[in-house]
Amino acid sequence: MLRTHQLGVLNAEHIGQQVTLTGWVARRRDHGGVAFLDLRDASGVAQVVVRDEEDFHPLRNEFVLQIKGTVERRPEGNENPNLPTGEIEVIADEVIVLNTAAPLPFQVDEHVEVGEEARLRHRYLDLRRPTPTRNLRLRSEVNRVARNLLHEQGFVEIETPTLTRSTPEGARDFVVPARLSPGSWYALPQSPQLFKQLLQVGGFEKYYQIARCYRDEDFRADRQPEFTQLDIEASFVEEDDIIDLGEKLVKAIWSLIDVEIPTPIRRMTYAEAMEKYGSDKPDLRFGLELTEMTEYFANTSFKVFQSAYVGAVVMPGGASQPRRTLDAWQEFAKQRGAKGLAYVLLKEDGELAGPVAKNLSETEKAGLAAATGAKPGDCIFFSAGDKAESRALLGSVRVEIGHRTGLIKDGDWAFVWVVDAPMFEPASAAVASGDVAVGAGAWTAVHHAFTSPKPEFLDTFDTDPGSALSYAYDIVCNGNEIGGGSIRIHQRDVQERVFKLMGVTEEQAQTQFGFLLEGFKYGAPPHGGIALGWDRVLQLLTGSESIRDVIAFPKTGGGFDPLTQAPAPITAQQRKEAGIDFKPEKKKADADAKAEAPAEAK
Amino acid sequence: MLRTHQLGVLNAEHIGQQVTLTGWVARRRDHGGVAFLDLRDASGVAQVVVRDEEDFHPLRNEFVLQIKGTVERRPEGNENPNLPTGEIEVIADEVIVLNTAAPLPFQVDEHVEVGEEARLRHRYLDLRRPTPTRNLRLRSEVNRVARNLLHEQGFVEIETPTLTRSTPEGARDFVVPARLSPGSWYALPQSPQLFKQLLQVGGFEKYYQIARCYRDEDFRADRQPEFTQLDIEASFVEEDDIIDLGEKLVKAIWSLIDVEIPTPIRRMTYAEAMEKYGSDKPDLRFGLELTEMTEYFANTSFKVFQSAYVGAVVMPGGASQPRRTLDAWQEFAKQRGAKGLAYVLLKEDGELAGPVAKNLSETEKAGLAAATGAKPGDCIFFSAGDKAESRALLGSVRVEIGHRTGLIKDGDWAFVWVVDAPMFEPASAAVASGDVAVGAGAWTAVHHAFTSPKPEFLDTFDTDPGSALSYAYDIVCNGNEIGGGSIRIHQRDVQERVFKLMGVTEEQAQTQFGFLLEGFKYGAPPHGGIALGWDRVLQLLTGSESIRDVIAFPKTGGGFDPLTQAPAPITAQQRKEAGIDFKPEKKKADADAKAEAPAEAK
Repeated sequence: MLRTHQLGVLNAEHIGQQVTLTGWVARRRDHGGVAFLDLRDASGVAQVVVRDEEDFHPLRNEFVLQIKGTVERRPEGNENPNLPTGEIEVIADEVIVLNTAAPLPFQVDEHVEVGEEARLRHRYLDLRRPTPTRNLRLRSEVNRVARNLLHEQGFVEIETPTLTRSTPEGARDFVVPARLSPGSWYALPQSPQLFKQLLQVGGFEKYYQIARCYRDEDFRADRQPEFTQLDIEASFVEEDDIIDLGEKLVKAIWSLIDVEIPTPIRRMTYAEAMEKYGSDKPDLRFGLELTEMTEYFANTSFKVFQSAYVGAVVMPGGASQPRRTLDAWQEFAKQRGAKGLAYVLLKEDGELAGPVAKNLSETEKAGLAAATGAKPGDCIFFSAGDKAESRALLGSVRVEIGHRTGLIKDGDWAFVWVVDAPMFEPASAAVASGDVAVGAGAWTAVHHAFTSPKPEFLDTFDTDPGSALSYAYDIVCNGNEIGGGSIRIHQRDVQERVFKLMGVTEEQAQTQFGFLLEGFKYGAPPHGGIALGWDRVLQLLTGSESIRDVIAFPKTGGGFDPLTQAPAPITAQQRKEAGIDFKPEKKKADADAKAEAPAEAK
Repeated sequence: MLRTHQLGVLNAEHIGQQVTLTGWVARRRDHGGVAFLDLRDASGVAQVVVRDEEDFHPLRNEFVLQIKGTVERRPEGNENPNLPTGEIEVIADEVIVLNTAAPLPFQVDEHVEVGEEARLRHRYLDLRRPTPTRNLRLRSEVNRVARNLLHEQGFVEIETPTLTRSTPEGARDFVVPARLSPGSWYALPQSPQLFKQLLQVGGFEKYYQIARCYRDEDFRADRQPEFTQLDIEASFVEEDDIIDLGEKLVKAIWSLIDVEIPTPIRRMTYAEAMEKYGSDKPDLRFGLELTEMTEYFANTSFKVFQSAYVGAVVMPGGASQPRRTLDAWQEFAKQRGAKGLAYVLLKEDGELAGPVAKNLSETEKAGLAAATGAKPGDCIFFSAGDKAESRALLGSVRVEIGHRTGLIKDGDWAFVWVVDAPMFEPASAAVASGDVAVGAGAWTAVHHAFTSPKPEFLDTFDTDPGSALSYAYDIVCNGNEIGGGSIRIHQRDVQERVFKLMGVTEEQAQTQFGFLLEGFKYGAPPHGGIALGWDRVLQLLTGSESIRDVIAFPKTGGGFDPLTQAPAPITAQQRKEAGIDFKPEKKKADADAKAEAPAEAK
């Protein structure tokens, strides 16, 4: 090693010792003939005193130095109690410049004064700052704690292929031309789903992997084309087993930031989550449940409320919002595809105000506070129309209220399992929410095509798909889905019925998942699993704005890496070699097909 | 859980207990009205007794069962001391078929009677066999032991991108079209090399990752297009530090199979390895060093030996090889590109025989045994001509002798570090050995372009590239390179000189590694690292024939996966959506370029 000690460990015990240190110049103060350097390495910072002007004159921030010197006690009054090394300083005998540093594009400290693009372009400098350093170190610890727990539970870590066949899971695949089989392409996996199920067929009863996954999605806020999940699958398990394991994991992970999560974590059905919170990812750090008012307004003369669904959510203290703010709420609703956001202000004196109030009957007005739970001084927001759309809007309004009113507090944590999700949704709904509907049918899977129906829907899920509930469970933290899984289908005939309902033809099923169906023929055990979104877990754990803050080298929204400038054009030769434009020659196509046959056939 | 106990844990202590078990029918024997099932799960096998013919009649091998029953002591004389559960059996009260199994394409047992293609096509069945199970479980343990050791040493696990820019490292890149930037492509990394170096620039002094890497290589025996390496990099280190860490790792890993590797592991210079073993991966499980005979034959009248180099290797007991075997050696040499393999047989009576002997002078004959170390009864093989080619041939002959004579024994382990490799080799040599020479220069890097010269060659490596030695080190086990690394260049000017020598133009360097060179401007610390070829390590550790035996879902030689049938054609729509055939429109190219600009620029 080029050093005898890490900087951060130096303390009064080292006084009098000769040491060799290495690190970066974090700061330098000159005091007439003496320079004080804050030297930084991965372990911390120590003060180095350089007395020779020839030595310190050329030094600039972020120079890399090797210092040979002696540890001494700082002169009285110069101690820094905020620094672990604050009692000592190192008097330099020799200053060796291991590397210089050009003037920096931005300063390496806690205060960020440049945009994200500049920071990502020089990510290696950005990573020297305390927050990114802490985030990535915590990520490493989270990996370790999760793996240790899974090992203790008897899980085996197994790598699955990433150059593989496409797994239809609701997004586009990235594809990779196969030079050795021109005209053929690999797909990068959206998840190890099929492989982890096949590992269960293969008798590995407890599998896990911290897996890289790929989704070629359109720009959505805070997604990455490649992302990481903790992927788990086990045999002979029931829903409770996987939920219990998930809780153990979450508990262990959050303990790293000294948060104790009480278990068991509350479970809520999907139906209840949608009804009370207008979301399958309810944020339970605060109350403010939605109230269904359809019945209440069943005989209303107010046209807007003559709807399939009317719901309300109360904003505590919202009656005092100025007109401008109430207008902004209309904008908020419009951005989410609604026409607007009806509201009634419940004045401190009990009077109802706002444009909607005029349209309500006396009876409707009289009972409103009691029906919605509003108190004098509150604002009641309404949404009416399609049930799913209205609930979704009220759900968004609810979360926004939580932020604006301070009901959502930093440092609060609320976990919930959302269970019993529907098996299927209309394909149009999936497409509307930006997913690719797998299959050409009217119905597509809410979770994925491999999710088992609950036993009571086993016979009817394909005749009454709208009612069928699945053995799916999502874990939600502070309104973010951090993981999800299900008990899987393990019977070939059930899997085939699901594909059929989704409009996957027998031929397509054979081409795309024939190997899974084939595997199910030979003794597939009952099995289930879960995947935790590792980037999202880390984002929440570190209190970061974005998952980009917990990824060493993230890409921006368009899948662009400002550091390497990837993606980039390829050369004509690469294109040719990779067989991207390969066209089988008609005439000798047969001969070629033979010649191009993969090696295993020879 | 669908069971109360794993099968493998059942023993006499459970006698009398009611248990619920799950597993696969491994074997079934009927004894008039009673069936004995060997039920198998991941933990082991237990005997289940089924008395009801209606229950056992339909059962076939690999059916998945749930058994409710009672543990009893086996009748005297029926114990099986070879089985951990051999004292007990489970009397079934209830037999529930969780899944059936169609007739199997091959039996699930230790004896493999089908080809690899059939096994890989039904890999989920193959994985139920004891050997693949053991291999993958050991792989999981190797990961764990290595990570624990690295954690203890203060290393941080960091994930690096896999959708990135190409890293020119001697093989072709797999490329991935970027739908959001039509005409642009990501590359899958050949290794995390550039990123791990940038993490050092970023101040993460100790990085590691078990990383997936990709190389689009032509068919070579026992390679995979995707493979795994334990990737390590550290700052402020010297060669000894990384070698020491490598030894700790290897020691910990081999201890998993109860092999104690003595450390320090021997180090040998590249020059010595080539001279004595004709290989940079010397197999030191046995001796039989090559002898250089150039000087000895300096004045020979035998044309074949009038060469730049003449070398010999002795085959103990080889004088008694029949003519047919000696002819086969000629074939062996021809397959390796040589014209043949000269030999002299040293008869038991001291006489020299074979076609070459006639061409040697009396003096040459008289001293031959002493010069080569051959004893009566041995065969001396010769190769003459180009030094590198001749040594390579003799090196292969040496290993073949080791196998044929039993000098290489199962269970022997010999590790060696090969150090001080040349920095550069002629580009033609790289191409000849199947690599892609990076750059258009006459010289290319033996390790890679980021390898530091040893200090004594820092000034001269670009004026005398053939002599320059590098700070590279490879670890070799039983003649297999299992890892390699180097101290890296950390100075921008040195890196630029290397690129220049390799014929990488300034523009190419800027396009391909501009971000690395840019990073080196801002205080890059001295650093170095190593990567261990995880698949190869596991192959050796498990005594497998191929790395395919230690990969859950491997591909065959042509990069084909018999299980999923990947790679496969993609649809015209996928092709269109992915922007594979995107051509920028001339007319509005500028406007498009703007519109297509990545999001970060907006």
